Amino acid sequence: MGEVMALCRAAKDASARLLGTRGEVRSAVLRSVAQALRAQATEILRENDRDVEAARVGGENAAFIDRLTLNPKRIEDMARGVEEIALQPDPVGEVAWSTVRPDGLSIRQERVPIGVVCVIFESRPNVVTDIAALCLKSGNAAILRGGKEAFHSNQILGRIVSGAIAQGGLPPACVQVLASTDRALMDELLKQKDHIDMVVPRGGEGLIRHVTEHSLIPVVKHDKGVCHTYIDANADGDMAVAVSVNAKVQRPGTCNALETLLIHREFPQARRVLEALHKAGVEIRGDADIQALAPFVKPASDADWDTEYLDLILSAKQVGDLDEAIEFIRAHGTGHSEAILTRDYENARRFRQRVDAACVFTNASTRLADGSVFGLGAEVGISTQKLHARGPMGARDLTCLKYIIEGSGQIRT
Amino acid sequence: MGEVMALCRAAKDASARLLGTRGEVRSAVLRSVAQALRAQATEILRENDRDVEAARVGGENAAFIDRLTLNPKRIEDMARGVEEIALQPDPVGEVAWSTVRPDGLSIRQERVPIGVVCVIFESRPNVVTDIAALCLKSGNAAILRGGKEAFHSNQILGRIVSGAIAQGGLPPACVQVLASTDRALMDELLKQKDHIDMVVPRGGEGLIRHVTEHSLIPVVKHDKGVCHTYIDANADGDMAVAVSVNAKVQRPGTCNALETLLIHREFPQARRVLEALHKAGVEIRGDADIQALAPFVKPASDADWDTEYLDLILSAKQVGDLDEAIEFIRAHGTGHSEAILTRDYENARRFRQRVDAACVFTNASTRLADGSVFGLGAEVGISTQKLHARGPMGARDLTCLKYIIEGSGQIRT
Repeated sequence: MGEVMALCRAAKDASARLLGTRGEVRSAVLRSVAQALRAQATEILRENDRDVEAARVGGENAAFIDRLTLNPKRIEDMARGVEEIALQPDPVGEVAWSTVRPDGLSIRQERVPIGVVCVIFESRPNVVTDIAALCLKSGNAAILRGGKEAFHSNQILGRIVSGAIAQGGLPPACVQVLASTDRALMDELLKQKDHIDMVVPRGGEGLIRHVTEHSLIPVVKHDKGVCHTYIDANADGDMAVAVSVNAKVQRPGTCNALETLLIHREFPQARRVLEALHKAGVEIRGDADIQALAPFVKPASDADWDTEYLDLILSAKQVGDLDEAIEFIRAHGTGHSEAILTRDYENARRFRQRVDAACVFTNASTRLADGSVFGLGAEVGISTQKLHARGPMGARDLTCLKYIIEGSGQIRT
Repeated sequence: MGEVMALCRAAKDASARLLGTRGEVRSAVLRSVAQALRAQATEILRENDRDVEAARVGGENAAFIDRLTLNPKRIEDMARGVEEIALQPDPVGEVAWSTVRPDGLSIRQERVPIGVVCVIFESRPNVVTDIAALCLKSGNAAILRGGKEAFHSNQILGRIVSGAIAQGGLPPACVQVLASTDRALMDELLKQKDHIDMVVPRGGEGLIRHVTEHSLIPVVKHDKGVCHTYIDANADGDMAVAVSVNAKVQRPGTCNALETLLIHREFPQARRVLEALHKAGVEIRGDADIQALAPFVKPASDADWDTEYLDLILSAKQVGDLDEAIEFIRAHGTGHSEAILTRDYENARRFRQRVDAACVFTNASTRLADGSVFGLGAEVGISTQKLHARGPMGARDLTCLKYIIEGSGQIRT
């Protein structure tokens, strides 16, 4: 596996070079990437067509082909995301904490790049420019390994990024998009703990499990989301309808989509919310109380409360009060995104304090848990772990803190 | 292993209770701990004597017995450390980042407790009150597993902490000091990934390797320190002597002690520094250039450059310039603590930017890399990993960030 060693060493060297670069140099590369995306849109679409055609021939379903397909609007969105990242302040050098000790020792924690970041992802080709931009912004070298389904798209996007890096005078190995989708090569990468500092798997459950189990490098996980929305007794009826339907229906195949609705037994418009969801094509599986509200509600089994449907199916349960809702989320939530809809100030406060999740929403759709929506330009992914980074990960989450200590001869006594 | 499950569940429940507590309640418990430490000093010393006596009978060496032994001054230091932590601002609820999006969605990242923290440690009994105080301060439940060598000391300190917790009206399981030092029980703990959120091993290399290899829970590692000090051409001679001797000699058995000295070939007082170290009892192993400077310098082998001596032994090497020093540290450092002694502004800037370590010192002793010295009151340990926490870990490093999103019915379009 000399190939893996060579690319890891090149990444490590590039990461050392990046330590000395200015933010304006790194941001200029991002602007070149955006420019090249627009200038080469026709070529990108041609390469993308090859992947889409192969997926069609291979009999992939519509959702798969939709995720894979680029079009002029999606390319423009990619370019804008990269430009938005270029405009953000440089996270490198940010001072997170500082103090001067009584003996005059000056101490501060500065944000520095993590080093070499490896991202393993599936299908969506925009991940190449999103991650490349976030890594360059934060001064990290990146190794990107996409799936074979998007091979041609990923390759041309990788060439565009490489061109911009060369134009900016940075080492080519700042971003390396693997030309091989061989799984043995990926497994070899996951062992390079002396060269790679962080691994991010972004894709389906199988990929994430494989990477977590095989990596000797610290992994930032992006696990599934069994997301709840709790409708409080006095929630606004129109908002409850609009937010519930949006959270469930707008894109049901995503990790931040609603899976379980909890409704306070005194909320007067429960039936209206259920009817709106039903009308939007959602199959509702409820407990006995919810079943009593509408004839189209099917009975929920115990397994439903822990299921991430990723589909137009929803489980629904009646609760007696806020605490019952919080307890239920504690028992069945996966720590991704949870929401309360309420007009009660104290209930909102209590919910956001007591619910332990990456994203806690008040009066908004869980579908908004997203790096672009949060203003990060793009996202590395949505972390469901507690250590290091939690929720949508942007450029700042690709940094770590370094203690800088400046003295005038201080010693330990 | 019903015992492990029972204590994990109790910790998880206590952690949920802690989510709702105010900082003043948690800090009041710390003040009670400090008070009780002073009031029960005689009883603590009596229990500690049993451990020290057993260690003597067991033929442990002087350094081991020193680490284990408490005395009135050390108990007072423990009490003061806990009080210092009580006085710090509450890290819980700190806003790390915030934004309002164009659609009015308000987003912020708030510090919240990690949940349940398990610390596995050896010999030094002060770890019980240090970690208990840092965990309580940051709203985490703690499970502490000390070594059998400090069993009686750890037990009485655990009872003191429990007493203060009861007095403050918090659940007893906020801090649990295990009454068993059985290794099978520890290994069982390391599997409880649904109940414990973070494991910190604090002790020798063997303990840290065992925990890292057996834990299914994320581990924050405290690996060895092969720490360098680079003396630049124009460094102050007196400072070079004082800092080098302090970094090597003041407590050679610690991870932040100096192991390798790098001396610029034009630094005129190299011989004086070597003589001061020699006079302080340090065995010096040098490259050919260093050997040529003084007759007492022994030849260094290749292995010396990667050795953490933890003893009065030092490797020393001459370098031609700053970049050679930086490259050498990049090749042989362990990312713990590195220092430059210089009067040159640009060299200081370049060194702290290019050297990738948890703590980078200018004109100060690496022995200062310590939670108490940095003003954190105490430390969970010194992390040598990049993700989550790096360097001396205080109460803030026991928190993670939660996205709090507040809206007025916003949905994803």
